[in-house]
Amino acid sequence: MNKTIKRILVSMLALAMVLGVGYTINSQMKRQEVETVSGENWKGKTPKYIFMFIGDGMSFPQIQATQYYKGIEEHGAINAKEGNYPNPEKLSFMNFPISGTVTTYDSTSVCPDSASTATSLSTGNKTISSVINMDETKTKSYETITEKLKKQLGYKVGIVSSVNIDHATPSAYYAHVPARSNYYDIGLQLVDSNFDYFAGGKLLSDDSKEVKEEGKTPIQTLAKQNGYTVANTKSDIEALKNGDKVIALCPDDEAEKESGALKYDLDRTGSELTLADYTKKGIEVLDNDKGFFMMVEGGKIDWAGHANDAASNIHDTESFDDAVQEAINFYNDHPDETLILVTGDHETGGLTLGFAGTNYDTYLQNLSNQKVSYTQFDRSIAKYRENKTSFDDAMKDVETNFGLKRAGSAGEATKGGMVLTDLEEAKIKAAYDQSMIEKDKRTQDANEYVMYGNYEPFSVTLTHILNNKSGVAFSSYSHTGLPVAMMAKGSGQELFSGYYDNTNVFDKIKAITKVE
Amino acid sequence: MNKTIKRILVSMLALAMVLGVGYTINSQMKRQEVETVSGENWKGKTPKYIFMFIGDGMSFPQIQATQYYKGIEEHGAINAKEGNYPNPEKLSFMNFPISGTVTTYDSTSVCPDSASTATSLSTGNKTISSVINMDETKTKSYETITEKLKKQLGYKVGIVSSVNIDHATPSAYYAHVPARSNYYDIGLQLVDSNFDYFAGGKLLSDDSKEVKEEGKTPIQTLAKQNGYTVANTKSDIEALKNGDKVIALCPDDEAEKESGALKYDLDRTGSELTLADYTKKGIEVLDNDKGFFMMVEGGKIDWAGHANDAASNIHDTESFDDAVQEAINFYNDHPDETLILVTGDHETGGLTLGFAGTNYDTYLQNLSNQKVSYTQFDRSIAKYRENKTSFDDAMKDVETNFGLKRAGSAGEATKGGMVLTDLEEAKIKAAYDQSMIEKDKRTQDANEYVMYGNYEPFSVTLTHILNNKSGVAFSSYSHTGLPVAMMAKGSGQELFSGYYDNTNVFDKIKAITKVE
Repeated sequence: MNKTIKRILVSMLALAMVLGVGYTINSQMKRQEVETVSGENWKGKTPKYIFMFIGDGMSFPQIQATQYYKGIEEHGAINAKEGNYPNPEKLSFMNFPISGTVTTYDSTSVCPDSASTATSLSTGNKTISSVINMDETKTKSYETITEKLKKQLGYKVGIVSSVNIDHATPSAYYAHVPARSNYYDIGLQLVDSNFDYFAGGKLLSDDSKEVKEEGKTPIQTLAKQNGYTVANTKSDIEALKNGDKVIALCPDDEAEKESGALKYDLDRTGSELTLADYTKKGIEVLDNDKGFFMMVEGGKIDWAGHANDAASNIHDTESFDDAVQEAINFYNDHPDETLILVTGDHETGGLTLGFAGTNYDTYLQNLSNQKVSYTQFDRSIAKYRENKTSFDDAMKDVETNFGLKRAGSAGEATKGGMVLTDLEEAKIKAAYDQSMIEKDKRTQDANEYVMYGNYEPFSVTLTHILNNKSGVAFSSYSHTGLPVAMMAKGSGQELFSGYYDNTNVFDKIKAITKVE
Repeated sequence: MNKTIKRILVSMLALAMVLGVGYTINSQMKRQEVETVSGENWKGKTPKYIFMFIGDGMSFPQIQATQYYKGIEEHGAINAKEGNYPNPEKLSFMNFPISGTVTTYDSTSVCPDSASTATSLSTGNKTISSVINMDETKTKSYETITEKLKKQLGYKVGIVSSVNIDHATPSAYYAHVPARSNYYDIGLQLVDSNFDYFAGGKLLSDDSKEVKEEGKTPIQTLAKQNGYTVANTKSDIEALKNGDKVIALCPDDEAEKESGALKYDLDRTGSELTLADYTKKGIEVLDNDKGFFMMVEGGKIDWAGHANDAASNIHDTESFDDAVQEAINFYNDHPDETLILVTGDHETGGLTLGFAGTNYDTYLQNLSNQKVSYTQFDRSIAKYRENKTSFDDAMKDVETNFGLKRAGSAGEATKGGMVLTDLEEAKIKAAYDQSMIEKDKRTQDANEYVMYGNYEPFSVTLTHILNNKSGVAFSSYSHTGLPVAMMAKGSGQELFSGYYDNTNVFDKIKAITKVE
């Protein structure tokens, strides 16, 4: 055989192997079908470094809203009459070569829970809401992809989250519990996992009844006994180095005081460690010859969605994207050995780009008037209640923090403008009145529940009105049934195109890594 | 060279050609990047038969809601406690091997218009809302994919819609006008197009000022003069045969009387010609050796979305799917020469699977209680107004047509149940009172606009309440900024995976058909 032909043949065979599972070729070579489900017989090269980014509550609306918002920041507000057309700016992961769509329903509902959806991503099984890595009867445990990779391939494992590292999504990459609220059990399993890098929000188990009431040993202590370095100051975290076995917890002075999670991007002063910092440090700590798998959760996207806080939803999606950029930087140094996946676990809040009151117009630039998250403003509301701050005084803070102006002082309400209509002000006043009542003395009918959920009436009404003045809306305080996007870059990427179920995400990673 | 090796080599080369544009192989054969934008150098076999199905206002929420609803019809309501887990039933086009995601913003807004989005799909250009196949200055015309295919390849062209065939979406496949409301001009261009098969809802140009006030010749007359067979009875339409040059208009006795469009699927008596019938007839008429391109629009999905009528939204998505099935049947006879594309032009209504009042629960089975579309119920409302029908009597029809039961007669309101709460009944009563006022005497504040839009207050409140009792919600009476799904099956399908812009849809078809 001629050498050149031989080389072509070898190249073609290699191509066929690389594409292998993607295509079943019929004998006439007429056309190809893409195998979109499991990639069972994938013949490509297993990536040594796998990043699994999960934007909790991030689906198409969050991605598009953020891209359109970034576009406005970059190019100015949309005004077709002046020739300023929509000009979205891409998030880093939206430049990935492959994208797919992933359905998210669980065994309980089409509006699933983070515990069950993370179970699907991590083990390939559906389960009921609130269960982590166990079956619907809560008796059988499922082995996770991280356990398989550690055991069978010797990969190191990193778990990073902007919320508490024993919250549902991160837990689903190392624990198996019948209820996501079993924080102490989750903590015990964290210690037992022997995984290599845990980083992000503080441990919820510290406040568990086991520790507080029953006097059991705190998880951090047990972790230290099991060889973990527990770092919880900025300097200690920054000093962590390659090969350490680590639990890095958000320093007290950097954490959101109510939750122990990382602050919303909107509330950062600028000096705090970010999700990107914890991701970058994770790469440094985990990097080794056998490889690693790192799950990074943007958990505050979800929390902002629950609260219907569109500005925080968008800013935390940007912050999540910064973390992805760290993986891209790593990928650029190891392009043939790395796979980066970016997806969501479900949509949160039913965010829509569009609102009945603004029809075909959106004014996303208005969201830039919001200077703090609802959580931070809730702290002000607590003070108003304590100090019996007048509505007029509170509304001065509202203008500072949300840009919403009262009609008397600042001109007329116009479509797309920031001056409140009488009706909007009346809604805000009613919500303020509710918020001035002590929480345990409030009553709420079904209509008020739809208006406020379990949130502080004053702040949730302010974000609702700012959202609507920006041309966006939320329909729920819970998760919704929208599928999520999946973006893939790197070795094995081609398996992630198509429209498939979240359980198949596990199947695909399993196929790519060839674990059993 | 050994014969077997030769065969393998030829096969591999053929594979490389088929996949050609999809993959750029670097010299080390390490990995591949998918070219997701235009497919400019695509080397596959041009399909002779191209179907472009556009679900107007159909995006991920409509697709998923319909699949979950079909699942409940098939398997019963979701009840995790009884082990009845979510079990979606796939729409035919959701079995297609390739899917992608398509952004839809136009030059005016992130919530685009059907005229501008169809312009993007049909010509590859963005333009401002309401403009069809012209630039933002309304001075330059863009050539459509249908014109190119007809002129350069001799393809026949079919245009089918469940709404009027001179409505924005179908018009964008044969006309160029500065305003979508220029129905008479659109009609003149329809006649001039010399395209081969127009079928669906009646011509809006019949009611144009040109015909009604200025006495210009009706489009149907001009069409006949230009060699078109105009069929507008069921028997005439059924008698159409291969090779005819046809305008097939929904028969008077089958059309929705207010609009001339095909009826909502919910309102059909069963004997009317469906979108699937018009599609099947189109295949029969158009089939020829040179090939054809047929655009089929499911236009009532959009109208139901605007009206926030979830049941009609879902049922018309099923009806659209029946039309796709006709193309699949054709594909099965011509698998190597056919390409079927199914997409939306934008999302309409901001439909979310999930609602604040039902949290994580949905009760889609409740939507099966709706027996008529809002349009048909509006006819009853007109009679109530005329006859001064009492609220009590009207509510009897409400129970029959929407399943909503009053508390007094039928038990207590429960979550997921169909008995109205006091608050819901109060909302319905307020809307009934509004609807009993003559339309031109009603006033509406901003809050009422959000509640009712420009719809009949009584009917839109009934669908809102039924939607919410089913666990779904709408946020707008307009289009929204959600991307849409693209499903592809057939020759060239692989170009349609990824996350790309609607203008790229044109680029890809152009690449596949190799027209200039």
